[in-house]
Amino acid sequence: MQKAPVNAIYAQSGGVTSVINASACGVIETARRYQDHIGVVYAGFNGILGVLREELIDTHMETEQTIAALRQTPGGAFGSSRYVLRSPQRDPAAYERLIQVFKAHNIGYFFYNGGNGSADTCEKIASISQSMGYPIQAIHIPKTIDNDIVGTDCCPGFGSVAKYVATATRETGHDIASMASSSTKVFILEVMGRNAGWIAAASALAQQCDSEPPHIILFPEVPFDPDRFVQSVQQAVKQYGYCSVVASEGVCDANGRFLSASDDVDAAGDHQLGGVAPKLSQFIVSRTGLKTHYAVADYLQRAARHMASATDVEQAYQVGVHAVEAAINGVNGAMVSIVRDSDSPYQWHCQTIGLEGIATLERKLPPHFISQDGMHITDDAKRYLQPLIMGEDFGSYDEQGLPAYAKLRKVMVSKSLPPWEPLD
Amino acid sequence: MQKAPVNAIYAQSGGVTSVINASACGVIETARRYQDHIGVVYAGFNGILGVLREELIDTHMETEQTIAALRQTPGGAFGSSRYVLRSPQRDPAAYERLIQVFKAHNIGYFFYNGGNGSADTCEKIASISQSMGYPIQAIHIPKTIDNDIVGTDCCPGFGSVAKYVATATRETGHDIASMASSSTKVFILEVMGRNAGWIAAASALAQQCDSEPPHIILFPEVPFDPDRFVQSVQQAVKQYGYCSVVASEGVCDANGRFLSASDDVDAAGDHQLGGVAPKLSQFIVSRTGLKTHYAVADYLQRAARHMASATDVEQAYQVGVHAVEAAINGVNGAMVSIVRDSDSPYQWHCQTIGLEGIATLERKLPPHFISQDGMHITDDAKRYLQPLIMGEDFGSYDEQGLPAYAKLRKVMVSKSLPPWEPLD
Repeated sequence: MQKAPVNAIYAQSGGVTSVINASACGVIETARRYQDHIGVVYAGFNGILGVLREELIDTHMETEQTIAALRQTPGGAFGSSRYVLRSPQRDPAAYERLIQVFKAHNIGYFFYNGGNGSADTCEKIASISQSMGYPIQAIHIPKTIDNDIVGTDCCPGFGSVAKYVATATRETGHDIASMASSSTKVFILEVMGRNAGWIAAASALAQQCDSEPPHIILFPEVPFDPDRFVQSVQQAVKQYGYCSVVASEGVCDANGRFLSASDDVDAAGDHQLGGVAPKLSQFIVSRTGLKTHYAVADYLQRAARHMASATDVEQAYQVGVHAVEAAINGVNGAMVSIVRDSDSPYQWHCQTIGLEGIATLERKLPPHFISQDGMHITDDAKRYLQPLIMGEDFGSYDEQGLPAYAKLRKVMVSKSLPPWEPLD
Repeated sequence: MQKAPVNAIYAQSGGVTSVINASACGVIETARRYQDHIGVVYAGFNGILGVLREELIDTHMETEQTIAALRQTPGGAFGSSRYVLRSPQRDPAAYERLIQVFKAHNIGYFFYNGGNGSADTCEKIASISQSMGYPIQAIHIPKTIDNDIVGTDCCPGFGSVAKYVATATRETGHDIASMASSSTKVFILEVMGRNAGWIAAASALAQQCDSEPPHIILFPEVPFDPDRFVQSVQQAVKQYGYCSVVASEGVCDANGRFLSASDDVDAAGDHQLGGVAPKLSQFIVSRTGLKTHYAVADYLQRAARHMASATDVEQAYQVGVHAVEAAINGVNGAMVSIVRDSDSPYQWHCQTIGLEGIATLERKLPPHFISQDGMHITDDAKRYLQPLIMGEDFGSYDEQGLPAYAKLRKVMVSKSLPPWEPLD
């Protein structure tokens, strides 16, 4: 006998992407198609913090049009959070609170949309059903621009930032090439990627022959060698007239120190990065005297919904769809993963895999994706990356000539529990 | 009696834009329609330097399709240059050389596509016809992302960078808004604009109400007041949960010193700018402790052809068309300017105006475009800016999912003169 419909919570976690809301769209639209199973989807206001605080957005108060528009809206429409739930042993009160909230709102499904950290949280919440006897099914929906989650061929969010970075590399390449005879000779584009060089690697898709940008890519996986870097810059300028460099924010020296860690340390104890490009720029000027320009893409790259990969948008949507269908089929403690069936024509499908071990691993560029000299990618890497940026999904524009985004009403569900604050 | 067809030279000057090649397209396509008047259009390889060196690209060796594709190709397809021709008094040899080149290739028209500096050069070349008796007609085609040329309602190149910056402000605003509850509270976007704040001002088009980004705009026209800036940042964070700042690279302190001039000085004696955002970011962190991120858009903004304003592309094309038609009608020593007939519906047309005085003036934001507090724009400014970003012109994409650009053959015209090098 089928159980009576229960409600679902959907929450966004960690750094947002330009397509995370496409996953939200996939979850909500699919849940609306399965009303025999799922009553209402509530969204955590600012992610898991909203769940703990009983701050829940009633997505059924949003029109079909608004939910559909989520598919083309960057950022985290319901608010995201970097808050990390401690283990049930260290913070049992948080789990008791979660169960109170789940009970108060008849929650049977928990969809957590995030990266490695949220996979860990999702696993802990999934375990409640066994250890604490509350029947919740928790499904992890992968999202990260960093492409560093194991267990999935790629991560929704990455394909679009990859397309953005490759496009920016091609565009700025045309700019520098046209000025180099009498002006800027070296251009450095700093991109995200603290520990994994996937985003920097994607810039190579802009290159159709050796003379085209990028000429040099700096990865977190390859220790920075100042002398070889300068040599390579000078060689490119000599050969092609200019040099285009793409640098991961996480480039390290031979001792594993970030080339440019600011003094600020964030909540998770990580150094806040950003500033590799200005440092490399100063370095090139001091060593070669070549005129240099740099750009720091920062949020521009991960918010660039206008430059989304149609493939990525569709994958982000489908992992949401698949999460709901898996939940209805009784899956718990799993992540939706993307399986590649073939490179060309590119074919893929979704499946679910167990969450064990996912959170503790971080997928870096494999050695055979990095060229011999450590400053470019191989054909294997290009074969992997190419399909992920295929297709354009520009979204719609408003009458003022700017991208039109979903405007949520964000009607909050009435609280029935006493106020509660999570540990700092 | 109509004179026999003569040839034309087209040259690009100064920092390139994402639509300068649309002007090239307008010139070449129009010249091809007037073969009774214009034989061949030669393009200076790397601008005026190529003209002086007799390095000329034969545009008639390019197919119609290639010339049409220039309309959607960023950068300067024939190469641009920051080389500034001295006056005929200081460097008479350069003018004698120009006349040699003009004679050698039967040149009757000179189209110079650039900013204030090139208007000056164009005027000098126009004067040759009188002072040195060589019958050349020189027409200036305006181009600059800075929108700082007087005598025209707007400058081709500006509308697209304006659209890019407004879009980036809206997109990154959604990103920060979704993370601010537990992460980054302040985001700073550094944009170009050494002396004029037009580009920074355009970011305000992203804002539909006060709570939306940008919350603070820093202009070169308004001396930076550290205390008021910090107060405003804190006020926005308190009121809206986060603060979005757009800063011109040319922001100055009360003594007129650039907040962030690097030590490098370029050929024109200007300090190379870039680096305001990291400085402001450090400043905010030290004064408020708020978590801050920044992006430096640099070439990303002026190369972003994928985000071009359809209005701007069309204007860039039409100034090229108009230049050729004016030349055929006997105009010399003039600039094509854009005249605004009405704001809404936006209507405009091209005309030519004399070059006298254009080069020496730089159009800054007028005081009535800057809000009372000096950190935003007025409704007058919005009325002016709004039409310039209207319409999307994405260009076409290749089979690899990236923007497709013109690939020129660049067949060089045979030289008939001895080698010659311009003064440094």
